Amino acid sequence: MHNRDVLISEVGPRDGLQSIKRTMPTEAKLAWIAALARSGLAEIEVGSFVSPKLLPQMADAAEVVQGALAIGGFCVAALAPNLKGAERAIAAGAQKISIPVSASRLHSLSNINMSPEQAVEQVAAIVALRDGLAEPCPEVEAGISTAFGCTMEGQIDEAWVLRLAEMLAEAGADSINLADTTGMGNPAQVRRLFKGLRLAVGRKAGGAHFHNTRGQGLANAVAALDAGVTTFDSSLGGLGGCPYAPGATGNIVTEDLVFLLEGMGLRTGVDLDRLVLAREALLDGLPGETLYGHLHAVGYPKGFVLPAGEPR
Amino acid sequence: MHNRDVLISEVGPRDGLQSIKRTMPTEAKLAWIAALARSGLAEIEVGSFVSPKLLPQMADAAEVVQGALAIGGFCVAALAPNLKGAERAIAAGAQKISIPVSASRLHSLSNINMSPEQAVEQVAAIVALRDGLAEPCPEVEAGISTAFGCTMEGQIDEAWVLRLAEMLAEAGADSINLADTTGMGNPAQVRRLFKGLRLAVGRKAGGAHFHNTRGQGLANAVAALDAGVTTFDSSLGGLGGCPYAPGATGNIVTEDLVFLLEGMGLRTGVDLDRLVLAREALLDGLPGETLYGHLHAVGYPKGFVLPAGEPR
Repeated sequence: MHNRDVLISEVGPRDGLQSIKRTMPTEAKLAWIAALARSGLAEIEVGSFVSPKLLPQMADAAEVVQGALAIGGFCVAALAPNLKGAERAIAAGAQKISIPVSASRLHSLSNINMSPEQAVEQVAAIVALRDGLAEPCPEVEAGISTAFGCTMEGQIDEAWVLRLAEMLAEAGADSINLADTTGMGNPAQVRRLFKGLRLAVGRKAGGAHFHNTRGQGLANAVAALDAGVTTFDSSLGGLGGCPYAPGATGNIVTEDLVFLLEGMGLRTGVDLDRLVLAREALLDGLPGETLYGHLHAVGYPKGFVLPAGEPR
Repeated sequence: MHNRDVLISEVGPRDGLQSIKRTMPTEAKLAWIAALARSGLAEIEVGSFVSPKLLPQMADAAEVVQGALAIGGFCVAALAPNLKGAERAIAAGAQKISIPVSASRLHSLSNINMSPEQAVEQVAAIVALRDGLAEPCPEVEAGISTAFGCTMEGQIDEAWVLRLAEMLAEAGADSINLADTTGMGNPAQVRRLFKGLRLAVGRKAGGAHFHNTRGQGLANAVAALDAGVTTFDSSLGGLGGCPYAPGATGNIVTEDLVFLLEGMGLRTGVDLDRLVLAREALLDGLPGETLYGHLHAVGYPKGFVLPAGEPR
């Protein structure tokens, strides 16, 4: 991570694709991931090792991980909801495993049929699995989902979110992210929780995962920056969203986020021109899909100067 | 301004309407303004006293000001580009006059055929006119347009923007706003310039006027809040935008801004339900017009609690 102030973790191939009904063919996923990699993105979450019965869009996760490793030049991350998924991710060669742990008890039970405490035990088991490997490679990241609110429970107690972060740190997770899974967070809350996260788990305080459901995604990102966050999840074109609510976009838009950060003088190591070009590869794989974002349509401001890009 | 932390100045009937080709009939404007007023908005910029040859959409500005005064309950603001416009605004009964002064010399010359220095002289003349009235009523606000960049000149020197603010304060303007006319600003720049504005003109430091051209409007608003800004221009549904660039929206969206602020625990005095309802009155006057925003489509998060609203 040389000459970079902020790390962007592109999650479109995982969070974006799992949020839409259509399945992108494996070859198209890899062509899109290759286009993303050409922009200099240092981390891409390429798939999810969940049951293919639950998410047929992710049935080819192992193949995509292997294809992504063959492309190379970036950290190949994958989501795993449990030990079994982590075993598959490790077998495929994932370099980083993200494990979602929901702060909302109702969401956790309905989503993965485990309580938050049971999910923490899964993280401990996955860390033990990793530590027992001949080459203990993959980084284990725990992401606290619904950390800023839950569509089932509503508001989530902030002290409980931070207690859960401590439990995850004690379970051995390398880093703990906070995720606004449903786009309910606001900048004041974001500042409080990320400051609290740093107090709770120190150097294990991880990145921010925001959705732009109510248009507040980039505002929340700026608040997170204030609180010392230097890693952000986002998806190209904001892929995802909710088919039932026309205004509900998916993750924050990678190209708009990179533009925001670079405009602020923060180096992301991402070549914005190539990043915007990757929208074409995405649409090749999902013709006609609704994408979001502003920069691709409007272009750079006159006289806009990008900080020196990452040598690639 | 009791029980309010942030003042929202709705500029849709001026900035929104002048940015689209169609002309909203006067009666429809007043029905929309009445709907906006019912939401508790404390200030509405209802029109612009420019030459009707340049902006036929604003030809009825005097009638709209008078109709707005009859509705009552909010500060009736209007834009005037020069002394002649200010005379018309005062004659109509405007309670606040906003005068745009462009930091970009090229923009100023092409837009109002005056240099920035000549525009400052206009502000001085308007203040003298106001001060000479039997009842020196209207507040005089100068808005520095293109303060964050110009589509003609590109980057604008920040020291010059602040010098211009000082000149406007010396010319007698009651407050000096900074406007990101073309949506080129970023949060770091916003923080610097608004902090600088406060150092330069003290209590005359005014509000922020952001466009969401590149999706950064609310992020810039959060940065401005950090710098002590408590007044924001915005337009319902983000009315405006640019017909040539599909992703280029207009002003920041009032309802999303109010939701953001109230979520942060800041009181705006605006009833969000009634504000969202005002979109209907807007669309009644401009059937089929493209509007923006997220909250109206997605709704409140479960368990969302608004701070106690302004009694109306």
